[in-house]
Amino acid sequence: MSNLRSIAELQGLLSLAIEKTSFPAEPAELYDPINYILSLGGKRLRPALVLMAADMYGCDLKKAMPQAMGIEQFHNFTLMHDDIMDDAPLRRGMMTVHEKWNTNIGILSGDALFVKAYQSIVKASPEHLSALVDLFNQTSLEVCEGQQYDMNFETQDDVSMNLYLKMIRFKTAVLLACSLKMGALVADASEEDQNNLYDFGIHIGVAFQLMDDLLDVYGDQKDFGKQIAGDILCNKKTCLYIKAYESAGEEQRKVLDHYFAHQDFDAQEKISKVMEIYEELGVRASCRAMMDENYALAMNHLNAVRVAEDRKATLLQFVDMLMVRVN
Amino acid sequence: MSNLRSIAELQGLLSLAIEKTSFPAEPAELYDPINYILSLGGKRLRPALVLMAADMYGCDLKKAMPQAMGIEQFHNFTLMHDDIMDDAPLRRGMMTVHEKWNTNIGILSGDALFVKAYQSIVKASPEHLSALVDLFNQTSLEVCEGQQYDMNFETQDDVSMNLYLKMIRFKTAVLLACSLKMGALVADASEEDQNNLYDFGIHIGVAFQLMDDLLDVYGDQKDFGKQIAGDILCNKKTCLYIKAYESAGEEQRKVLDHYFAHQDFDAQEKISKVMEIYEELGVRASCRAMMDENYALAMNHLNAVRVAEDRKATLLQFVDMLMVRVN
Repeated sequence: MSNLRSIAELQGLLSLAIEKTSFPAEPAELYDPINYILSLGGKRLRPALVLMAADMYGCDLKKAMPQAMGIEQFHNFTLMHDDIMDDAPLRRGMMTVHEKWNTNIGILSGDALFVKAYQSIVKASPEHLSALVDLFNQTSLEVCEGQQYDMNFETQDDVSMNLYLKMIRFKTAVLLACSLKMGALVADASEEDQNNLYDFGIHIGVAFQLMDDLLDVYGDQKDFGKQIAGDILCNKKTCLYIKAYESAGEEQRKVLDHYFAHQDFDAQEKISKVMEIYEELGVRASCRAMMDENYALAMNHLNAVRVAEDRKATLLQFVDMLMVRVN
Repeated sequence: MSNLRSIAELQGLLSLAIEKTSFPAEPAELYDPINYILSLGGKRLRPALVLMAADMYGCDLKKAMPQAMGIEQFHNFTLMHDDIMDDAPLRRGMMTVHEKWNTNIGILSGDALFVKAYQSIVKASPEHLSALVDLFNQTSLEVCEGQQYDMNFETQDDVSMNLYLKMIRFKTAVLLACSLKMGALVADASEEDQNNLYDFGIHIGVAFQLMDDLLDVYGDQKDFGKQIAGDILCNKKTCLYIKAYESAGEEQRKVLDHYFAHQDFDAQEKISKVMEIYEELGVRASCRAMMDENYALAMNHLNAVRVAEDRKATLLQFVDMLMVRVN
């Protein structure tokens, strides 16, 4: 069996493959934005997961490359449309597609990129086709639903923890899970392995999002590189906020309602008042426990995958990379 | 072999099937717009073509219904996104989705409806899956390209007739062709028949669009129900305009440039000046010849389909319905 590739090696393969993918030049207004967003880089973690899963089984990576490309194309399609919906000016430090061109171009290029993703995903042996398409359809629909829930939460007061967990599962985790399962699928892994890798992806994705919520408020500002408590300042409904709101008494809820009503408060005052309530209600520990639970479930599912332990090294490297900030 | 269904019968079956299709209630913001646009009606001609083709071969229509639904869902997805791009307030006399909700909802519900279309299309026997998905991918991409060309033409001065024909083929004809081929495909028609039906769809679609251009200027206002020469008034680049512009002398081109520079002219003056040039250059006859040629090609391909002539009655009824206004 071939040597296992590191994440960096897989990222290198992916960059090459993306550079080599040439889309038809015409109409340029449709394909230039696609080539542009795919060239912006990023860590290519999702397609790397496809290859990682295939590599666990010693599968020829050429076989899994179309699905890896399809996942990256799909991810970039969602970024194009999400950036319009979020009115975001920048993506990876560069202008977003709808800013560089216009909204119509962003919508239509996104649609075309979505089709390109399907075209890549179905480059597979006939015996894998049905499972691949079903998985991709389900995942795509869940990602749409996740984005909708996320948008709803901006104006929704009574977001339950269950709905929040569903949102982060759909918006983030299912695509990681789908990537892993696709890699295993084209590598002819057993269904049990495929499902364990899928569930590993779900739980590590949820753990990652919960970690992200925790770090926003409790992370080391230097390492994290973002403004501390940015989520509180922009009234984002995070795990911490939802847990606090659920367990708050009448007075505490009033304070939360007050500070989450708009964004014009003194930043330091708002942060310290909200964090005081978080402290009183012990939400840091609750969310940390939820994160730990998902992390543990992820590792259980990875343990259950029936390959030699040394074939899991790259996925463990991925876990370390993803979750390093919490340990 | 079962009796052939009329278009009205097929439309009835489709309305029932669409009513019965229930999408998950949650998140409502995603699925309400989908149910809304699908309920607006319309003639359901594209899905009817799927069933017509399958019915030619005496195929159980239940077998072709998922593909028919998929085509209707895809068509409505393109309407949702096109209406945003065209800033259209009304669709079938009702508010467009982005007007009734908002643009973000229109984008995301459209995306979800596109996935729903894929889910419907792949409800097929495994042996048909690959051909169905490849055909649908290719068609979807061409429809995106057609919409992009159409948007480009608004600001593009030098639209060639070839590019115009490509635009109407992609924007309109390929989906008719794809619908017919899908119906034939699931009915296990020969590849030759599938391709003849596809080509029939292409040419009848192009003929229809050319007819539409002709009727705008030369149609009987009463029957047509639209303002005469609306295309001239809104500077639309139609077959007539492009033919005129291609063959115009220097003076005629100056007049066309003048009147197509903006929309603030006296309507009657603009129409008569432009129609004068159309007259001088004989573009009505040229476009009519192009339409006739495509109509004849369509009928040749339909003739070549190897089923008993009486099995083609509904498709011929469809042709009469589509092209009635020109005969």
